[in-house]
Amino acid sequence: MKLNTDKWFTEIYPEDGCALSLEVSEKLHQEQTEFQSLEVYQTTAFGKLMLLDGCIMLTDRDNFIYHEMMTHPALYSHPNPKRVLIIGGGDCGCLREVLKHQDVNHVHQVDLDEAVTRASEKYFPDLCESNNDSRAVLSFTDGVEFVENAEADSYDLIIIDSVDPVGQAARLYSEDFYRACFNALADDGIMIAQSESPLFHKSLIESMQSRMVNVGYKSVTSLFFPQCTYPSGWWSASMALKGNKATENRKVDIETKYYNNDIHQAAQAVPQFMRNFA
Amino acid sequence: MKLNTDKWFTEIYPEDGCALSLEVSEKLHQEQTEFQSLEVYQTTAFGKLMLLDGCIMLTDRDNFIYHEMMTHPALYSHPNPKRVLIIGGGDCGCLREVLKHQDVNHVHQVDLDEAVTRASEKYFPDLCESNNDSRAVLSFTDGVEFVENAEADSYDLIIIDSVDPVGQAARLYSEDFYRACFNALADDGIMIAQSESPLFHKSLIESMQSRMVNVGYKSVTSLFFPQCTYPSGWWSASMALKGNKATENRKVDIETKYYNNDIHQAAQAVPQFMRNFA
Repeated sequence: MKLNTDKWFTEIYPEDGCALSLEVSEKLHQEQTEFQSLEVYQTTAFGKLMLLDGCIMLTDRDNFIYHEMMTHPALYSHPNPKRVLIIGGGDCGCLREVLKHQDVNHVHQVDLDEAVTRASEKYFPDLCESNNDSRAVLSFTDGVEFVENAEADSYDLIIIDSVDPVGQAARLYSEDFYRACFNALADDGIMIAQSESPLFHKSLIESMQSRMVNVGYKSVTSLFFPQCTYPSGWWSASMALKGNKATENRKVDIETKYYNNDIHQAAQAVPQFMRNFA
Repeated sequence: MKLNTDKWFTEIYPEDGCALSLEVSEKLHQEQTEFQSLEVYQTTAFGKLMLLDGCIMLTDRDNFIYHEMMTHPALYSHPNPKRVLIIGGGDCGCLREVLKHQDVNHVHQVDLDEAVTRASEKYFPDLCESNNDSRAVLSFTDGVEFVENAEADSYDLIIIDSVDPVGQAARLYSEDFYRACFNALADDGIMIAQSESPLFHKSLIESMQSRMVNVGYKSVTSLFFPQCTYPSGWWSASMALKGNKATENRKVDIETKYYNNDIHQAAQAVPQFMRNFA
């Protein structure tokens, strides 16, 4: 069947010979920010859709899985997370999830592009509902420099909610950056980074995790979860522990739509074809 | 970006306002069988692709997850599965997986459309590598009638590897059919059915599982797994036990690409938004 291209937004993944299309009813926003193109569409079945440089960042319908899995597994793997740093994450979805944890008393979100947050406040108000929480600080500056300049033992958790490793964002996947995060973390600190698709980007995941081990993290755990509007519909995060051991079995005491104690364990199950390194 | 429609096959999921496209280099096969249209394409990144009535049935690249998850969790949940019935499954992918279990001594595959199996033998020889196993019987006839006419206590496991619940295939989702399966199973028998996408078809999954309970199955377990080329990229199977309890922790002793003991447990973790019934 052919798509009427006026009514559909299509993102092509050229290296993997596939494409995802979402049916759209209206373009709500388009701007060239200082750093990238930013578009927002109304879709017919996925709520609102945000694109950065033509790539799907999030939709109303399915972002809950990604944002919950980028935050809660790491938070519940730490015995007592108080100070959280989010690098990227300008849509504020991770920020909202982190702030559900009452014991967290400081969250600093550092995204290069203020325009993403402003558009999110306007078009994705649910994700931004906690932006005015007194525990939250939002900065719009370079995340790599921010972490390099952070004092040692500044954070219990660093969340790297970045775009794909292309252009400027590639620095967020480097050994130098992971080392800077390591230095900024407390001794029992945790770093978690989104790490693309197990089906499409296995070698990238392998490289990322090797770099994490190289800079001194004691262990790295893969987390796997569905993510409908990202390439292959299946996504991963890589969670690196600076200390020896994750805290286990802390009871989930917040409201979620995807994550729970069973999912916490289940997401760590490594498919057979990923076993050679994970 | 717009797709050059000559080079891409697109499947639209109209009710969910999205579409998946695969880049194709050549059409290898097209026929109108007695029951449906059947096409096979060479893709650029997913190996070969089979379509039935314009819907993606399988690709070389990602079918391993579906076929492993439709077979091994149920086989390893049964203490001693000897006699297996596959309804549908004409591509023979489930058949191959079942035959990896040396203790299984009889597998009967019943698919309406012989043309699917013939095309699979030609274009997906890997999936058909065990078709000549002496334990396998392939019949091409109506699966509903077959099960209705089966004697009581004929099977330890019935696998319903059906297409979507549209047209004739809708009968494979009915209470009558689940009851016929129940009657054909041994007392400790298991039935497993593919049950579509958690994200897109939650109410269908709920209905299917209610029907299974209604006809007497003691319990129904959802299994969740990624499936890149099916709608939403996330799929489910529903496993119904005629007896009281699944066997746990049988060690996986076959070669797989996705499934293993950890995945066996992990697939059963129920996301929070599915908790109201699963």
